[in-house]
Amino acid sequence: MKFYEKTINEKHIYTGNYLEILNVYVELPDGNKSNRDIIKHPGACAIIPFLDNETVLLVEQFRKPLEKTILEIPAGKLDKDEEPLKCAYRELEEETGYKAESMTYLGSIATAPGFCDEIIHLYKAENLSLGAKCCDEDEFTQVRSFSLDEVKSMVKSGDIIDTKTISVLAYL
Amino acid sequence: MKFYEKTINEKHIYTGNYLEILNVYVELPDGNKSNRDIIKHPGACAIIPFLDNETVLLVEQFRKPLEKTILEIPAGKLDKDEEPLKCAYRELEEETGYKAESMTYLGSIATAPGFCDEIIHLYKAENLSLGAKCCDEDEFTQVRSFSLDEVKSMVKSGDIIDTKTISVLAYL
Repeated sequence: MKFYEKTINEKHIYTGNYLEILNVYVELPDGNKSNRDIIKHPGACAIIPFLDNETVLLVEQFRKPLEKTILEIPAGKLDKDEEPLKCAYRELEEETGYKAESMTYLGSIATAPGFCDEIIHLYKAENLSLGAKCCDEDEFTQVRSFSLDEVKSMVKSGDIIDTKTISVLAYL
Repeated sequence: MKFYEKTINEKHIYTGNYLEILNVYVELPDGNKSNRDIIKHPGACAIIPFLDNETVLLVEQFRKPLEKTILEIPAGKLDKDEEPLKCAYRELEEETGYKAESMTYLGSIATAPGFCDEIIHLYKAENLSLGAKCCDEDEFTQVRSFSLDEVKSMVKSGDIIDTKTISVLAYL
């Protein structure tokens, strides 16, 4: 593999709530050594739910790292050994209260490949009906509907900054 | 601020090469407590460089967290107190060898708002001329040119997974 970096030594730094922090010495293609901090993430799904052909649901949520409330498509982490498709159905209902009859895989994105292995699997949900809303107990969120044109305008105006929400538009 | 999470206690876990790892106890809107691991990142710029109206440059690079080589628009971290625009000019030349006469701000993305404060500022570079290539000494990369249509096809086919590269298409 071109430019491959061989692991010389890997040190475990920290086990978080769901992240693992590693520090890795690597051998570069020219034989020199370098050091990388690596965040291990369980992976996630994100879903763009269509109420009709033109209307989608977004979730408003406070994000502590940014110290602000932002708009995002519904998303959540994979449980251990969970299939991404199953996670997409589960997270859609947990985050919005809607069940989907149809869930279409769109693509997968690497959110921060320089330092983190997180992959988010993107899905389009259609034929929605209200299920049993059941949020994670430490999530305080509000579900809001927008036309797809409004979403695109909010991306261009800077009112939407979440990269999975912006990326999903490229697959539609 | 709706859904605001007040910091109760913040513990510093680790200082990495450029990341800081924090563990934070927060008070939720209902008064209950929760715990968040937060990755502090210096922020970055990413640039889509146009050789002509239809041809752009991408960088092929091994990404240790993913254990593979991927295609991305050129990007790099902000130096301390560096203006994003200055960073965009600098990183374009360091990563591709090209200087840009024109650099247009497109928007800013939050790559992983659930656990990391990284913001990437996106730019479009035009009117390029070859400068003095000077890569970071631990980066082994290859610059390749593609038509914008090829880039869009590679997103849909899954050959491009980098979210900043996918997101920048939404602003063009």
